[in-house]
Amino acid sequence: MTEKMLVEQTEYLEVGIHIGTKVRTPGMSRFIYKVREDGLYLLDLATIDKRISLAAKMLSKYDPSDIVVTASRIYSIAAATKFAEITKIKLISGRVMPGLFTNPNREDFTEPEIVLISDNRNERQAIKEASKTNVPIISFCDTDNWIKFVDLVVPCNNKGRRSLSLIYFLLAREFLKEKGLIKTNDEFNYKVSDFEAKVEMKAK
Amino acid sequence: MTEKMLVEQTEYLEVGIHIGTKVRTPGMSRFIYKVREDGLYLLDLATIDKRISLAAKMLSKYDPSDIVVTASRIYSIAAATKFAEITKIKLISGRVMPGLFTNPNREDFTEPEIVLISDNRNERQAIKEASKTNVPIISFCDTDNWIKFVDLVVPCNNKGRRSLSLIYFLLAREFLKEKGLIKTNDEFNYKVSDFEAKVEMKAK
Repeated sequence: MTEKMLVEQTEYLEVGIHIGTKVRTPGMSRFIYKVREDGLYLLDLATIDKRISLAAKMLSKYDPSDIVVTASRIYSIAAATKFAEITKIKLISGRVMPGLFTNPNREDFTEPEIVLISDNRNERQAIKEASKTNVPIISFCDTDNWIKFVDLVVPCNNKGRRSLSLIYFLLAREFLKEKGLIKTNDEFNYKVSDFEAKVEMKAK
Repeated sequence: MTEKMLVEQTEYLEVGIHIGTKVRTPGMSRFIYKVREDGLYLLDLATIDKRISLAAKMLSKYDPSDIVVTASRIYSIAAATKFAEITKIKLISGRVMPGLFTNPNREDFTEPEIVLISDNRNERQAIKEASKTNVPIISFCDTDNWIKFVDLVVPCNNKGRRSLSLIYFLLAREFLKEKGLIKTNDEFNYKVSDFEAKVEMKAK
């Protein structure tokens, strides 16, 4: 079996998609293949790749308007914003307020059929809401994340700018392919850098 | 949110789909909602229901000929046989031989794109083969199963005759619906009992 990865292995390694933290939760242990000399846990690359692919497949079973993606940090917001723009999936950026999925009286009330979480510590309120309403949860999880309630863990470095850009780039591309909106990677007219937060250098 | 289950809750309870074992592995803890007085761990019903649904969605992204289902005990074999017949998914029943997915020289060599495992202790060879080749794994897991390598755990009683019949019945029905081969439950012309192992009473 000559399974091809979504991108060259070197590209994954360059952005550090597999570089975790110095903390390891019990649930994430299975995705860790070793600990680096400096104490950082490293995630298994083949699993990362496989699960990005699975996440795209799973999401593609839903209408984009029934999907919510959450992002709450500067890098994930930038990447998820581009992702949402391309896929037409609904983005909730910043803090998720209690009642968002459960209180119909809220102005921003929404009833997703599936949610995608960028960081399930930062966005734990979204996890709470989704699990209360039994909505399936796909979540990017680093070695230090608690994965209770998550239905599909996508193990990865969910903090780095370049790692997040590549993840959302791939997920957008695979989503469009699974939906049949594009046929090949070449038809995907975006670059990984389009998903990166722009660091602005302003003169004072 | 008034999420409907795939069948009435009473039907799930009647077949004991949520009744686990007296053993609890760390990976399965999150799916357990309580321990019964007799020491049996009980699985969370809402999660069981949600995940059967997710499993059907996930499988439906593949061509039936690229899916392998494994079954190795009398009750799972009966249920999975019916499931395979209806869905055209390939059934591997009985013992999985080393090399099945990895050795092209074997006569029964097969390269599935995704596998569905009835019991991942009994069918651990299939898990091993699939994880070597990085094939996604969906697995029915009881409270005593080790879930390393499994990509989507469907928590359930994976030993009982009636539980297995109902699981495979629902999975077949949802699979056909997700594939667009039937539109409603009424169009599914099978009964749960069609998935049950027939206990033969022979006169001597």
